[in-house]
Amino acid sequence: MTATDDRPAAAAVSLEDVRATARTALDPGVWDFVDGGSGTESTLAANRAAFAELALVPRVLTGVTAADTTVQLAGTTAAMPVAIAPMAYQRLLHDEGELAAARAARTSGVPYIVSTLSSHRLEDIAAIGADTWFQLYCLRDQAKNDELVDRAETVGCRALMVTVDVPLMARRQRDIRNSFALPEHIRAVNLDSGPGGQVQRRVDGASALAVHTAAAFAPGLSWTDLERLRRRTSLPLVVKGVLDPRDARMAADLGVDSIVVSSHGGRQLDGVQPSLRALPGVVAASGECEVLLDSGVRNGTDVLKALALGARGVLLGRPVLWGLAAGGETGVAEVLGLLRTELAEAMTLAGCGDPAAATRLRTERL
Amino acid sequence: MTATDDRPAAAAVSLEDVRATARTALDPGVWDFVDGGSGTESTLAANRAAFAELALVPRVLTGVTAADTTVQLAGTTAAMPVAIAPMAYQRLLHDEGELAAARAARTSGVPYIVSTLSSHRLEDIAAIGADTWFQLYCLRDQAKNDELVDRAETVGCRALMVTVDVPLMARRQRDIRNSFALPEHIRAVNLDSGPGGQVQRRVDGASALAVHTAAAFAPGLSWTDLERLRRRTSLPLVVKGVLDPRDARMAADLGVDSIVVSSHGGRQLDGVQPSLRALPGVVAASGECEVLLDSGVRNGTDVLKALALGARGVLLGRPVLWGLAAGGETGVAEVLGLLRTELAEAMTLAGCGDPAAATRLRTERL
Amino acid sequence: MTATDDRPAAAAVSLEDVRATARTALDPGVWDFVDGGSGTESTLAANRAAFAELALVPRVLTGVTAADTTVQLAGTTAAMPVAIAPMAYQRLLHDEGELAAARAARTSGVPYIVSTLSSHRLEDIAAIGADTWFQLYCLRDQAKNDELVDRAETVGCRALMVTVDVPLMARRQRDIRNSFALPEHIRAVNLDSGPGGQVQRRVDGASALAVHTAAAFAPGLSWTDLERLRRRTSLPLVVKGVLDPRDARMAADLGVDSIVVSSHGGRQLDGVQPSLRALPGVVAASGECEVLLDSGVRNGTDVLKALALGARGVLLGRPVLWGLAAGGETGVAEVLGLLRTELAEAMTLAGCGDPAAATRLRTERL
Amino acid sequence: MTATDDRPAAAAVSLEDVRATARTALDPGVWDFVDGGSGTESTLAANRAAFAELALVPRVLTGVTAADTTVQLAGTTAAMPVAIAPMAYQRLLHDEGELAAARAARTSGVPYIVSTLSSHRLEDIAAIGADTWFQLYCLRDQAKNDELVDRAETVGCRALMVTVDVPLMARRQRDIRNSFALPEHIRAVNLDSGPGGQVQRRVDGASALAVHTAAAFAPGLSWTDLERLRRRTSLPLVVKGVLDPRDARMAADLGVDSIVVSSHGGRQLDGVQPSLRALPGVVAASGECEVLLDSGVRNGTDVLKALALGARGVLLGRPVLWGLAAGGETGVAEVLGLLRTELAEAMTLAGCGDPAAATRLRTERL
Repeated sequence: MTATDDRPAAAAVSLEDVRATARTALDPGVWDFVDGGSGTESTLAANRAAFAELALVPRVLTGVTAADTTVQLAGTTAAMPVAIAPMAYQRLLHDEGELAAARAARTSGVPYIVSTLSSHRLEDIAAIGADTWFQLYCLRDQAKNDELVDRAETVGCRALMVTVDVPLMARRQRDIRNSFALPEHIRAVNLDSGPGGQVQRRVDGASALAVHTAAAFAPGLSWTDLERLRRRTSLPLVVKGVLDPRDARMAADLGVDSIVVSSHGGRQLDGVQPSLRALPGVVAASGECEVLLDSGVRNGTDVLKALALGARGVLLGRPVLWGLAAGGETGVAEVLGLLRTELAEAMTLAGCGDPAAATRLRTERL
Repeated sequence: MTATDDRPAAAAVSLEDVRATARTALDPGVWDFVDGGSGTESTLAANRAAFAELALVPRVLTGVTAADTTVQLAGTTAAMPVAIAPMAYQRLLHDEGELAAARAARTSGVPYIVSTLSSHRLEDIAAIGADTWFQLYCLRDQAKNDELVDRAETVGCRALMVTVDVPLMARRQRDIRNSFALPEHIRAVNLDSGPGGQVQRRVDGASALAVHTAAAFAPGLSWTDLERLRRRTSLPLVVKGVLDPRDARMAADLGVDSIVVSSHGGRQLDGVQPSLRALPGVVAASGECEVLLDSGVRNGTDVLKALALGARGVLLGRPVLWGLAAGGETGVAEVLGLLRTELAEAMTLAGCGDPAAATRLRTERL
Repeated sequence: MTATDDRPAAAAVSLEDVRATARTALDPGVWDFVDGGSGTESTLAANRAAFAELALVPRVLTGVTAADTTVQLAGTTAAMPVAIAPMAYQRLLHDEGELAAARAARTSGVPYIVSTLSSHRLEDIAAIGADTWFQLYCLRDQAKNDELVDRAETVGCRALMVTVDVPLMARRQRDIRNSFALPEHIRAVNLDSGPGGQVQRRVDGASALAVHTAAAFAPGLSWTDLERLRRRTSLPLVVKGVLDPRDARMAADLGVDSIVVSSHGGRQLDGVQPSLRALPGVVAASGECEVLLDSGVRNGTDVLKALALGARGVLLGRPVLWGLAAGGETGVAEVLGLLRTELAEAMTLAGCGDPAAATRLRTERL
Repeated sequence: MTATDDRPAAAAVSLEDVRATARTALDPGVWDFVDGGSGTESTLAANRAAFAELALVPRVLTGVTAADTTVQLAGTTAAMPVAIAPMAYQRLLHDEGELAAARAARTSGVPYIVSTLSSHRLEDIAAIGADTWFQLYCLRDQAKNDELVDRAETVGCRALMVTVDVPLMARRQRDIRNSFALPEHIRAVNLDSGPGGQVQRRVDGASALAVHTAAAFAPGLSWTDLERLRRRTSLPLVVKGVLDPRDARMAADLGVDSIVVSSHGGRQLDGVQPSLRALPGVVAASGECEVLLDSGVRNGTDVLKALALGARGVLLGRPVLWGLAAGGETGVAEVLGLLRTELAEAMTLAGCGDPAAATRLRTERL
């Protein structure tokens, strides 16, 4: 019943074990790119502290025999309230990159969200057969945006996620100090069809992203752009990167299907409110609109805490990259398996038979 | 008058001294089993922090000459508001295990609570003559539950405690990393009469408990089960493992005699509210029903803090195991003696002539 | 104008410097006796933390040219709102002990409070000519109490302070571990006239105090005892050791002249509210009655913080002992001189021309 | 677009890098003079902690393409909401001192505030052509005050800032321990015309300032003095050193143009409220009067936090001295350039097109 029974002694006991393995496996520059955040990395730390400071108040004698972790995320049935966050250039971690991660997602029954900046092509990733979503960075070239949305629909993506907290890419001091550069063979292949495709290869890594943001991404994204996207696609529309409840209210009113509370893993504006702290306000402001939580999830109890504060589910970021670095598809599957074991156990111990029950748990700030 | 007078120089000055001795005496794997908690051990730490953050406001000029620590716990007269918490497999700490601890409890005048998973038989422990309570993990086999309750009544137990926060046993990472296993000769002898008795010997230690939980314990414990137990026995009924005031209210309404606020020593759901923080809410919700506090008590002032927040008394866990490891019956008696010395001193210094007076002390969160 | 001008380079720049010198000068056991607290020393630490967490909001453009630190303390005019706290056995720090400290108090213009357990005789200390107060531990033998009060009045003490937070002496773990013993030649000479005088010499140091407390001190001190003292003497009556506002109200109603908010330097009940945190509640409850603050004062800003929360002045404890150990009368004078320099500077910087103005400062908890 | 593009690899990535360079470059005594604070340096630390504990809640989809950092500060147009704080004796850091810093201010488009205690003459600094303000320490000699104000007006200063939190110079323990002394060739040349000019050269460094404060500065500055200054000059009048909202209200009523909330970089009264924590109260009390924030700013996000709490801009202190020590004019320009890059990025990421928009951001205390 527990995850330990069918594993050799050296198997990971917690996601932190996978992190340690990944750190050993990776080039220090790549590690810093994955592990670091922007500015003084205060938000990176605050995202974790917010989980540590929140305590759950479990229920007893509820008659729950085993927790059912199944849930609907933006209309997709997921084996647990977890989706793999959109993350750029996953071939940095493992040659199979997004393909390996998507295979693990398929096996584990959770959505895989393809980044605009994926290092394998959207079509190839979608062909794996996981529940695939597509994450869009709005480009300056509106025709290209339309093309990307078309491709996402064509390959059968179940949802379209638009990221709204990257008007520019924040300065990440570790990458600057490391003069971090993408290797030649890793690039944003989804964008190769246009002239922007060549730009990113000629600059160093940190700037590959920053320059691409400035050169290719639409800088002044507005509610009008979101409205246009809403009209453009019949896919469930997910807005990622909201912290202020006023923005959540506007997004909900505009008809989006899901709102992701996110501080971008501490990689965009440093010094912002930790996602978990912003969650209750966004949930209250979003009415019937689904809310997801991104940034800082590292174990099953963290997931339960997010549910208790009103999230429908969470996005999992860095731990998936750790899994990729530690063992490709197997590594990611181990991460997802451990997380589900921990979550199912936490739900049962808290007296929650399903994710909806978690919303009725009380919490207390320590 | 003070406890130091009749002890050699190397005697323990605080329970932490006994802990240090125990750590030296024990096999590292057993130490981790005793000392560790579940998950990231955040609740383990938070239980202690909650005591450290609470300050007492003592009274002066009350005319108290010496504090009388005597109290009624679930109808049993105890020499101090402390009972020995139910803990499995005490032979891991000392060959005499539960027998030694019960002897010390008898000498010290505090209740000894026999675990369902005790490594000496209930009958042998009860024969020691301490005020004995029996702790029940509800089993899948209802007939066996009835048999255990019958045995508890037959041997003269003063109270029946049912643990409600173990629908499954939480993952304890230290035990998994250590591949911790129970030695052959230590087993849950109270369960030997049934077929479940053999199962536990064939798996490794950490899983001995986990597998036993899954195989033998009733997984979906509900209020109906508690109601059945209430009808089944005329012994005072104590419910252990409540944190949410709503559950406390339901238990009180159902007619239980005592409610134990507990986070299971940080060994079940990690990330829950520390017991001491949950205590005032449970006391307020429980009306006339007695409330006890479990998890984190390490000295006499801690006991006084629990009383000041409305607890009738506390359960003492790990320090008893430290005492067992450090010196068997003598070690446990030393732990209980020190604790009583500290409590009596703290009560006198706070101007409390008896435990009831402690309830009128003010407290402040630091 | 600043205190640094007339000192050699090695002079103390802060009281912490004097502490460092004292630590070097003293036998480790004596150091622990002076420096340590009771229990886990949590109150010892909390007393300091309470000062660190409180911020002052200074005023500007008040026209203050130089702060006048003069104040009335229990009817005595003091050069600053500071009195030397009553402390036992000061010959442990320096052979001249209380005599040296009283000389420094005289020079510095602050009250010196003679402990019942002083190691020089009250009469000899009073003869120094400082503003002398006498601190009384109520004895079992009422005639002896009367005798002590008579002696205090006879030698010209300006106030009688009765300590109410020592129904027994708290366990101090450092002293127990050190088997700390008073040397033969140091004893509570004020008590030599009675049979109790011999007792204390025959037990070890830590217990010399503890046993004396139990043997000689009245254990069940009550409001009746305080009332009797109030009638017995026409000296200003100061009650030391109050934390609960309800006790402050009762003392004020009973007609005492001054109330000392104190956690006994973290040496009695461990885990109590830090004095500074208790101060506002006691001030509010005490009406017109003067309130003093004891425990944790280490620099001039600390004194100003106490004034801002409503104290008329503070008692200074350990730093005086540091001064004694570092340089006898000169050391204590240095401590008092530094403290006055710091206080006068802090008052001027906060725009306070006199101690009364400090009460109008705002404070904020950090 | 980012500041890293045109810099060699060893360029500073954050202001902390410049600090590290400065520390290496400077004599330890000068470093301590620059880096240290008064008392226990608790305010020095609290000023930083206040920024760390405040979280921003950014807005999204605002349509902002690039943030315009331009702002009016006390009537001066500045390229960003930052002015260089008045700081004494800048030749301690670099021989060109104030001249170099003013040149960098001119290039960077921010106001340079000349200290009364500048080590280059006001006239020479103003000739650089930056937007120059003059900071006045009110002198005992009223004629000299008038002369200084006349000189400031004559050389074209855009604003007159009067510092009100230095009735005396606070004790700085590092300087006393170091016997810190100003070198012969560095002096307060603006004061050379009077007899006070000679005094300061004959005492050691720490006291050069303290003695000068006592000897030359008016000790009992009052609202009448401020009123007189208000009448005396038609320059915008800025009052620096306010923390209590009551003082802010009085200053605003008196007709000052700008109020600087400041704890003097932790160099005056130690233990005061951190500037950032005092800011909202002062803003609320100041009505239409402009409020600036001084003390603790170390990066662009800090500036944005101050704006979000209602400040029109901030003063930058120590980082400018770091820049001077690290590279004279170039070093200061690098500091200002980095800060502007960080601020513009933070504003864009928070959805703020201009500084005024930042006032509408929500904040949360962590």
